[in-house]
Amino acid sequence: MALIVQKYGGTSVGSAERIKNVARRIARCQSEGHEVVVVVSAMSGETNRLIALAKEIQAHPDPRELDVMISTGEQVTIALLSMALLDLGLKARSYTGSQVRILTDSAYTKARILKIDEEKLRRDLKDGYIIVVAGFQGEDENGNITTLGRGGSDTTGVALAAALKADECQIYTDVDGVYTTDPRIVPEARRLNTITFEEMLEMASLGSKVLQIRSVEFAGKYRVKLRVLSSFEEAGTGTLITFEEDDKMEQATISGIAFNRDEAKITILGVPDRPGIAYQILGPVGDANIDIDMIVQNVGHDGLTDFSFTVHRNDYANALEILKPVAAHINAREVQGGDKIAKVSIVGVGMRSHAGIASTAFRTLAEEGINIQMISTSEIKISVVIDEKYMELAVRVLHKAFGLDQQP
Amino acid sequence: MALIVQKYGGTSVGSAERIKNVARRIARCQSEGHEVVVVVSAMSGETNRLIALAKEIQAHPDPRELDVMISTGEQVTIALLSMALLDLGLKARSYTGSQVRILTDSAYTKARILKIDEEKLRRDLKDGYIIVVAGFQGEDENGNITTLGRGGSDTTGVALAAALKADECQIYTDVDGVYTTDPRIVPEARRLNTITFEEMLEMASLGSKVLQIRSVEFAGKYRVKLRVLSSFEEAGTGTLITFEEDDKMEQATISGIAFNRDEAKITILGVPDRPGIAYQILGPVGDANIDIDMIVQNVGHDGLTDFSFTVHRNDYANALEILKPVAAHINAREVQGGDKIAKVSIVGVGMRSHAGIASTAFRTLAEEGINIQMISTSEIKISVVIDEKYMELAVRVLHKAFGLDQQP
Repeated sequence: MALIVQKYGGTSVGSAERIKNVARRIARCQSEGHEVVVVVSAMSGETNRLIALAKEIQAHPDPRELDVMISTGEQVTIALLSMALLDLGLKARSYTGSQVRILTDSAYTKARILKIDEEKLRRDLKDGYIIVVAGFQGEDENGNITTLGRGGSDTTGVALAAALKADECQIYTDVDGVYTTDPRIVPEARRLNTITFEEMLEMASLGSKVLQIRSVEFAGKYRVKLRVLSSFEEAGTGTLITFEEDDKMEQATISGIAFNRDEAKITILGVPDRPGIAYQILGPVGDANIDIDMIVQNVGHDGLTDFSFTVHRNDYANALEILKPVAAHINAREVQGGDKIAKVSIVGVGMRSHAGIASTAFRTLAEEGINIQMISTSEIKISVVIDEKYMELAVRVLHKAFGLDQQP
Repeated sequence: MALIVQKYGGTSVGSAERIKNVARRIARCQSEGHEVVVVVSAMSGETNRLIALAKEIQAHPDPRELDVMISTGEQVTIALLSMALLDLGLKARSYTGSQVRILTDSAYTKARILKIDEEKLRRDLKDGYIIVVAGFQGEDENGNITTLGRGGSDTTGVALAAALKADECQIYTDVDGVYTTDPRIVPEARRLNTITFEEMLEMASLGSKVLQIRSVEFAGKYRVKLRVLSSFEEAGTGTLITFEEDDKMEQATISGIAFNRDEAKITILGVPDRPGIAYQILGPVGDANIDIDMIVQNVGHDGLTDFSFTVHRNDYANALEILKPVAAHINAREVQGGDKIAKVSIVGVGMRSHAGIASTAFRTLAEEGINIQMISTSEIKISVVIDEKYMELAVRVLHKAFGLDQQP
């Protein structure tokens, strides 16, 4: 007998019929002898509906009150799913984040989980209950309702699995696992049976939006076995996210090709090459709450260097505006930028022990006449910034070049 | 400076625009120097929408889970109204029933309030906050979410007013007060400036559905000054529900004519006139959870009597079915009934000190050829059961006969 935490996203619980399907899946898991704790999101569309309603009242809804409001989305789902389980003759009971109690900090709309009171849940499990917990929400130490931000239900699932020391945390979604790349771009893309946490982090943050990066970090930290599965397929083992690189992994050098076309690049040319200059440039950008992704600075010459970074496209105009006076102040020559770019990344732990990955990648792109604008690397990832119009082509040829369309 | 509890029903908060109007009304009350606690219902239609959704999952939704679900209706409204108040530059803060904490028993879907923790609210009021509380809901001692049943938001308002010792509890609704009768039937019906609690109880329970009877009882018990007002009119003082019969009251013998066409009558003829017989008849009906309204038994003769009572029309067929074996068992002659009836009631504390009310009523009906089928009286009320088709006529002629169309 194992203790399984299952998390179902908004699409999986998007209608009464789908909720009943989820109930049957849970029933099957319990009938196989497992204890089951279920975490659910709001029905698809519900959170957006609530936010739109809030904006009819207040252009920028008050964060505390917004959390009071949008947390109702999951509260409705836990009740409906519990009813569906009860209707199958099973023992089931729902809990909101406050009821569990999932204690968070007070950062409304993006709170972080501090602690989970798992005692009540353990008692219910022992009494044979299936427990249905509202994802995405908690309460702070003063009893205020908080939410964890978009995708926070994954984090709730992993956090509960960690607190209960569950054997596995299953994330049910509308895809049946993690793929070598987006099958809409490369039809030959394959589902990975396993992927390491580090690879998953790189894949997730780079746009393969299967799992929220926060939940993967959380799972890695607490060593929760995480599995991504489709809630629409009866069979299927999904993709297991593992802690260790197993033998098979060693053979598959590269796990996947990720991409992202939500970014814009900004370059400051002719920056005086002296200590503290990076902070002088990025400080004001950070102060404006603009997240920075890639940062590239090459070796300077003649006391000058060029400094580049990428931001979300929505922040591009704002970041440029902020940087103009900064560039003047530090006596840089010019600020340039562009938002017609895409980032393509090659991810794989095998990279660590295999040489030549970068040169294969660069040669492949050169053969197609694709110019590389920026390069950035980590231990298990190589990212390039290219012209947006070449993105699909780049993903396809890299996917083929690294043999990802072949069964390992 | 007074402490005012204001309660707004579903129609009053039925859209973003209406919520903003309510916020402006609250702002005005605060600007006049008052402390304000607001209780709100779910937006009109929302509770029914949620119940329909639940029924898609479970024909008879589990009561615990139904409460988890429908309590979200008010939770959305408190957030929206708080946002509207914040948007006006005021300090405001929302609380769910659990957050307040409004402690109830565990009777899901029809819980009763046991205790209100008013300390947090007092602290907020002292800090200048307008407090917005979700009506209709609470939690039991184990932290389970409960609801108070339909119309429970009125009860929440009164209970908060009692706990906070508020100067007045204002119930805003879509009518501007309590009328001498339904203006749709008698265009000359007048709004009453005051009405006593006892009269209000008789009026409410008899179909003048302005206030939930439970909230009136509650207000009477804790001596909360209750006022019914329209949320759609800027001016207007509504109807104040008073504890004492004042001098003006003494002059107006009758306060109003109430009516109800939701009932059916059942008569058991030839019942052996012996102790315990009423229980033998009504016990099985009560066991089937059928509420009984009027009960009439006249003096018997020859050891036999007739026994009549009224039930809700929805329960009529069921009650008849239950009574057939009962009548056989007690050797009664026959069970009869009819659901084409209406109950018309004359209500007024003045009745206590004025003779001749009953005879005026009976003469008035006789002059119109309206036959009276059953009569039942209390200290401040006379109810008659008549053929349904004469209901409007009876209400009109009684309204005129007691001078209710004249300004007092």
